[in-house]
Amino acid sequence: MKIALAGIGKIARDQHVPAIAGSSDWDLGATVSRSGSVEGVPSFTSLAEMFEAHPEVEVVSLCMPPKPRFDYAAEVIRAGRHVMLEKPPGATLSECHILRDMAAAAGVSIYATWHSRQAAQVAAAKAWLAERALRHVTVIWKEDVRRWHPGQDWVFEAGGLGVFDPGINGLSILTEILPDPVHLRSAELLVPENRQAPIAARLAFHHTGGAQISAEFDWRQEGEELWTIEVETEDGAIRLSEGGASLHIDGKEVAQVDGAANDGEYPQLYSQMAMLVREGRSEMDLRPLALVADAFLLGERRVVAPFEF
Amino acid sequence: MKIALAGIGKIARDQHVPAIAGSSDWDLGATVSRSGSVEGVPSFTSLAEMFEAHPEVEVVSLCMPPKPRFDYAAEVIRAGRHVMLEKPPGATLSECHILRDMAAAAGVSIYATWHSRQAAQVAAAKAWLAERALRHVTVIWKEDVRRWHPGQDWVFEAGGLGVFDPGINGLSILTEILPDPVHLRSAELLVPENRQAPIAARLAFHHTGGAQISAEFDWRQEGEELWTIEVETEDGAIRLSEGGASLHIDGKEVAQVDGAANDGEYPQLYSQMAMLVREGRSEMDLRPLALVADAFLLGERRVVAPFEF
Repeated sequence: MKIALAGIGKIARDQHVPAIAGSSDWDLGATVSRSGSVEGVPSFTSLAEMFEAHPEVEVVSLCMPPKPRFDYAAEVIRAGRHVMLEKPPGATLSECHILRDMAAAAGVSIYATWHSRQAAQVAAAKAWLAERALRHVTVIWKEDVRRWHPGQDWVFEAGGLGVFDPGINGLSILTEILPDPVHLRSAELLVPENRQAPIAARLAFHHTGGAQISAEFDWRQEGEELWTIEVETEDGAIRLSEGGASLHIDGKEVAQVDGAANDGEYPQLYSQMAMLVREGRSEMDLRPLALVADAFLLGERRVVAPFEF
Repeated sequence: MKIALAGIGKIARDQHVPAIAGSSDWDLGATVSRSGSVEGVPSFTSLAEMFEAHPEVEVVSLCMPPKPRFDYAAEVIRAGRHVMLEKPPGATLSECHILRDMAAAAGVSIYATWHSRQAAQVAAAKAWLAERALRHVTVIWKEDVRRWHPGQDWVFEAGGLGVFDPGINGLSILTEILPDPVHLRSAELLVPENRQAPIAARLAFHHTGGAQISAEFDWRQEGEELWTIEVETEDGAIRLSEGGASLHIDGKEVAQVDGAANDGEYPQLYSQMAMLVREGRSEMDLRPLALVADAFLLGERRVVAPFEF
């Protein structure tokens, strides 16, 4: 199937282009971007021109930042094409609901991707937890913003999500692997004096089974970075680390399973999209974004030291 | 049908008790509250005791503040009873999604009420707008917090919603009467230096038809208070004012229609709940709360003068 990529920046080049190139489902037919392009692929600056020149494109994968994404997604759906969304699927929950309804009405597939859910050991962690009663769950997402977003002031602007930009990856895994739904009880947002968005956050969740569930996100981490979920159950404990790539059960490392399920995060997203299109289905799990919106809605803000890159 | 009221405070006494008393559908069988009670009605301090003593109660209407409401709602659903929620339906979106799923799994009705949607002229405004193309929509919700919440510091705490507590009423009408869905483009939140929640807000919405849609909420209003939605279309204009009680079409006031539809906001909520229970349906429109969460997620915060009651 022919696919087009819109928004050619770092994430498109690093992940999407290789994933499409390595897939037997997809053929990259065109790119749409105001600045970037991919060598050997026809490039356009608007969706309308691209559809005009390449009516055979059936799917458009959107990689631009969340704020402009709605307009592109709406245009793709109105053109009767299927649409795939980088995470987070939009700048607001309301626009995601609107896109979901539009796609359903137009009879096209929409896929809100969460790449971290495709990390190598997430499925194994989910299967292990499925039948167990939870006691404690701790989500730790600590990285160095200077390393991952050097000089990118927009991550601290209003709507930029701040530390929830990486933290939402942890929440996407949490909502995937836990057998029961959770919601936010309280949140603390640490906001630098000179910024709008939090640089660190502490979240406490409510769990219907009474488990203690918390999350700690920090973008000020120096030295070792941590992307870890620890779960203690009534029947053993697991530690899912390296963003879902590594799993320890009761202290013992679980070996990586070879095969299609471990092709990598983005190749699996594109396999899933191919399946959704073939089966005429959509997948739009908005729970991770709802938890982030809830944290902003409910969170207590504390001013911390100014931050400069 | 026997109904119980939980959370006996000002809103329960002012609105819920008279609405139930005046209804031929409902009989107030019990109250649950740690502090309040209703004369002549058996009172309990926990749901469990109430269900034990009054197993004939089929529906529980929850009037306590949003933060503790989830636990009560979950307990009502687990007891196999139908549940009715004051606005906003919860402290977070995630908990509302969980309650909706729980109610569906338990086969009981859940109703997230929005009393302002039942104001006398809202249905007429919606009918008039149904076939018209929008140009400009302005939502103005300006009232004096000192009049409506004297000394209630909690309205300015994290999770207290601030000016969105009244503003969500305007958003509940907006999402009801507009023929097309809207989502937030940008927001400005004016937060007093000594408080967590905004005392004023300005919102700009995106509309698929290109109409200009904005909202202005202010809790610092002195003198005349305003709860108004003005809509200019390609074929005339309306002004819905007094929180939905009054309607002008092209400058001419529309007369009130007598009859069941104008019994008052809360009597209509209870009529609607009776219909939902009889038909085995639920109604849980979360769009107003999603717009508020989106405003906190996306909004630019500006510090304004400290506020004291």
